[in-house]
Amino acid sequence: MSTRRYAIIGTGALGAFYGARLQRAEVDVHFLLHSDYEHVAQHGLVCESKDGDFTLPQVHAYREMRALPACDVVIVALKATQNHRLAELLPPSGAILLMQNGLGGEELLAGIVGPDRVVSGLSFLCSNKVGPGHIRHLDYGQVALGEFATRGPSDRLRALADDFARAGIPVQLLDDFRVARWNKLVWNIPFNGLSVVLNATTTELMAQAATRQLCEQLMCEIVTAARAGGVPVEDAVVAKMLDHTVKMTPYRTSMKIDFDEHRPMEVEAIFGNPLRAAQSAGAAAPRLETLYRLLQFLDAGNCR
Amino acid sequence: MSTRRYAIIGTGALGAFYGARLQRAEVDVHFLLHSDYEHVAQHGLVCESKDGDFTLPQVHAYREMRALPACDVVIVALKATQNHRLAELLPPSGAILLMQNGLGGEELLAGIVGPDRVVSGLSFLCSNKVGPGHIRHLDYGQVALGEFATRGPSDRLRALADDFARAGIPVQLLDDFRVARWNKLVWNIPFNGLSVVLNATTTELMAQAATRQLCEQLMCEIVTAARAGGVPVEDAVVAKMLDHTVKMTPYRTSMKIDFDEHRPMEVEAIFGNPLRAAQSAGAAAPRLETLYRLLQFLDAGNCR
Repeated sequence: MSTRRYAIIGTGALGAFYGARLQRAEVDVHFLLHSDYEHVAQHGLVCESKDGDFTLPQVHAYREMRALPACDVVIVALKATQNHRLAELLPPSGAILLMQNGLGGEELLAGIVGPDRVVSGLSFLCSNKVGPGHIRHLDYGQVALGEFATRGPSDRLRALADDFARAGIPVQLLDDFRVARWNKLVWNIPFNGLSVVLNATTTELMAQAATRQLCEQLMCEIVTAARAGGVPVEDAVVAKMLDHTVKMTPYRTSMKIDFDEHRPMEVEAIFGNPLRAAQSAGAAAPRLETLYRLLQFLDAGNCR
Repeated sequence: MSTRRYAIIGTGALGAFYGARLQRAEVDVHFLLHSDYEHVAQHGLVCESKDGDFTLPQVHAYREMRALPACDVVIVALKATQNHRLAELLPPSGAILLMQNGLGGEELLAGIVGPDRVVSGLSFLCSNKVGPGHIRHLDYGQVALGEFATRGPSDRLRALADDFARAGIPVQLLDDFRVARWNKLVWNIPFNGLSVVLNATTTELMAQAATRQLCEQLMCEIVTAARAGGVPVEDAVVAKMLDHTVKMTPYRTSMKIDFDEHRPMEVEAIFGNPLRAAQSAGAAAPRLETLYRLLQFLDAGNCR
């Protein structure tokens, strides 16, 4: 049994999934909730999952961060569009594990709590919240963890990995989280972006020569941008991801789901921050910039 | 009274407007029609216009090009998406006046009828076909004419200009039609393209910083591409057009109308040909290329 206590900030499709899985593995987990607080405090969490459905009738639910006990690990599972709230949410102690899409979150956290407390987490998860405290886990689930301030696996990372492994979550420990972030952007930028702009699934984007070529050109721009900034992303990742995407079942990306539900899209985290990083490193990334501008326009007109 | 006889190939929103105005000025005009032949042969043409409505109860209407008498001027007013039909439509004599959007039409005509017969025409016209033989002229109407094979105004251009002027159409004679074509692309590429991709009017595109900036960047790419190909488009045209567009009433572009009506868009003429010209001249034009790929995807899924 783990001796570490976890807090989950953002009990949505991602936070509720990992939090529930940890609690089911007898880890001590404390959930911060907003709109779902009443429901979850009373009924707990329900997880329908391809790995087996389960229910947690009782969870530690909170409406305010100051009500939580001191935690060893605080998982930030908010959408990046909520990051302006972090400065007031983060507690004075514990590791802060950022599980978010896009770029720039770790730097933001480091500015608030200091670099040593920050752990980078990437999740490869397909899950949706279908009701208050009720999530549906469709596919994947593995995570990758890396230290922000140092390279290579640390004791802290290994301890986190033990807890996730106990919960049945495959974990990869990263030498350099930046490589993993940029690798993920190589896929997220073309497919999240174009799925929204063109109202298309991954399969439709890959089926036409015009968009398949545009995806590849965008991917190459991202690889070039990463390298210009000193992050050694490999060229081979482009062909590998294109090949993988062709074989996937038709997939509505998370950004497309946000757009369809009239929620704010993570435009700055996935497009704006990588673009600014590219430009700072002297890589122009004009196709990424074009897509960024299109999404800014669509996001501004879409939110309820 | 003009001694020149005109043929109109493509009696739609543009061809019917100029043909009807010429005939009203007592020019001898012969109209080639397709789906509207029966109606127009029987009832003639109706033009609702901001310059005054008028009706031509009787026009020379034809179903096949070989039925027309020999004409001095053949106005090609087809959409560029129909250009594959030109080789079989063009008669063996007469000047061929191309009134079309985009790039590459003159070169195509020159390959069919020889360069000396080709005249380039640009129209600045806002009109729609609202029924068989029935058009609605909303705004503008002026034309610009230039020789394809030589520079500067020729006697032939002056004679054409006389006929248009007699019909009340303002005419500009061009030293170099290529400058005018590329100038028009500077506006058409951002505003036609983005209006379709973002489902937006010109006013909406100019109202947001993201798209205003993207329009400007696209315009600068076009100017650079033109210059790389030896066409002296001026930098000042970018600021002038942006300024003009801000002051326009909200405008649904012609490409957006085609898209909304599920008609083929002039993607190759307005985007593909300029992109290939840019690339041949060593100008990369990555934003233009991105927009081109998006429109190819949308066009393929849109046509009925």
